[in-house]
Amino acid sequence: MKKQGILTIVSGFSGAGKGTLMKRLLSKYQEDYCLSISATTREPRKGEVDGKDYFFINASLFEQMIETGQLLEHARYLDNYYGTPRNFVVDKLDSGVNVLLEIEMQGALKIKEQYPGTLLIFIMPPSIRMLEQRLRGRGTETDEVIDARLKRAYDEMEFIKNYDYIIVNDQLDSCTERINQIVCNEKYRVYRNLEFINNIENELLAYQRGD
Amino acid sequence: MKKQGILTIVSGFSGAGKGTLMKRLLSKYQEDYCLSISATTREPRKGEVDGKDYFFINASLFEQMIETGQLLEHARYLDNYYGTPRNFVVDKLDSGVNVLLEIEMQGALKIKEQYPGTLLIFIMPPSIRMLEQRLRGRGTETDEVIDARLKRAYDEMEFIKNYDYIIVNDQLDSCTERINQIVCNEKYRVYRNLEFINNIENELLAYQRGD
Repeated sequence: MKKQGILTIVSGFSGAGKGTLMKRLLSKYQEDYCLSISATTREPRKGEVDGKDYFFINASLFEQMIETGQLLEHARYLDNYYGTPRNFVVDKLDSGVNVLLEIEMQGALKIKEQYPGTLLIFIMPPSIRMLEQRLRGRGTETDEVIDARLKRAYDEMEFIKNYDYIIVNDQLDSCTERINQIVCNEKYRVYRNLEFINNIENELLAYQRGD
Repeated sequence: MKKQGILTIVSGFSGAGKGTLMKRLLSKYQEDYCLSISATTREPRKGEVDGKDYFFINASLFEQMIETGQLLEHARYLDNYYGTPRNFVVDKLDSGVNVLLEIEMQGALKIKEQYPGTLLIFIMPPSIRMLEQRLRGRGTETDEVIDARLKRAYDEMEFIKNYDYIIVNDQLDSCTERINQIVCNEKYRVYRNLEFINNIENELLAYQRGD
C-alpha cells in the first residue's frame, strides 16, 4: 500500500540550517532517504566528486537535457547551469526511497506544478535576530553579503504560502524527527492510496454479488 | 505558534475499530485530546450520563439550536435528532485541545465545508474479509444486518476521496500512534501559521529599514 517514495523539497533562508538537517536525516534513516544530485555545467571544485556532489556535464549536454525534458527544473547562475535530473529522482521514488531536494523556492514551485504530489517543507529560523546571528557567527561573510541574504529572505516570503509545512529549526533533533514524521505520514494521504481504495471497493462489490 | 487545537473527524466502516482507537488515543494523550459530545433528542439509555455520553435535550430546543446555527452538523435517524454543538468544539479548540469527532461521512464533509481546517481521517480494515469476520465475531448481529453494513460500506466508498488520510487498522498501537502523529504534524501546515509568517515578514522589513 505504501511503496512509492515521497519527493520532498526542503527550502529555507540562507542560515536556517537546512544542510545540517538534511545530513542528520540522511544519516539517521539511511535506507529511507536519498539526496537528489544536481547536474551542473560549472567546474568541479577541489574534492568534489562527479556523481556524488554533482553530475558535472558540459553546456551542450545540459541544453540537450533541457530540450528532451530530462530535468525537473533548472536555473542559470553566474553563467552556469544547475538542474535536477529527472531519471535519478523517478527511479529512486519508484524503488520506495524518499528523495530529498534542497533547492530554492521558485524551482520548488515549478516541480510542484508538474508533480502535485511533491512535498514542500520550509525551514524557518526561530527569529530573524537569530538568523542574523547565525550568519554573522559564520565569520566568513561581510556585512554587505549578510544584508543581501536578508533582503533575499524578504523577497522569498511571498512564496512561503505555497509551501505545505513550515518548521522552526530551534532544536536539531526534534526538527529532524518532525521532518521524518511529516514524510512518513504523507504516505497515508488518500490521494496516494487510490489503488488500495479501488481494491477495497472491488472487494465490497464482489461481496454483494455473492462472489 | 501552535496553540489552536485541530478538529479531527475519524470515520470508518462499522467494524473497522474506530471506537477502540479513539479510546486508546484519549487515554494515552489525555491532555491533548477530547471527544466531542453530541446532542440528541432520544431518551437516555440505562447508565448514560447527560453531558458525558450525550447532551440530552428536547426537540424544540434542538430545533432552536439548528435555527440559530449552534450545531456544526445534524441529522435525523429513527425520529430522533443527533447533532454536534458548535460551542463545545470551538471552546476546546481555542484552548489548544484537539477535538475528536466520530461521525459518519456526510456529516464530516458538511463540517469540512464550513471549516476547511478540519482534518478528515478514514479508518480502513486490512481487508473486507477481515471486516466481515470482525462483524460476525461480535456474535450480536444477524446475517441481514451484516449484509446491510457491508452494503452501506460500499455506498460510503464514494466519499473517501474527500478525506485527507486513510489508515489501515491492522495493529491498534501503531494505528493510534499514526493518528496522533498526523494530528500533531497538522499544526505545522503553512496555512495554520500565517500569523507567525507575518511576524517574520515584519521582522525582515524592520531589519531592512534599519529599525
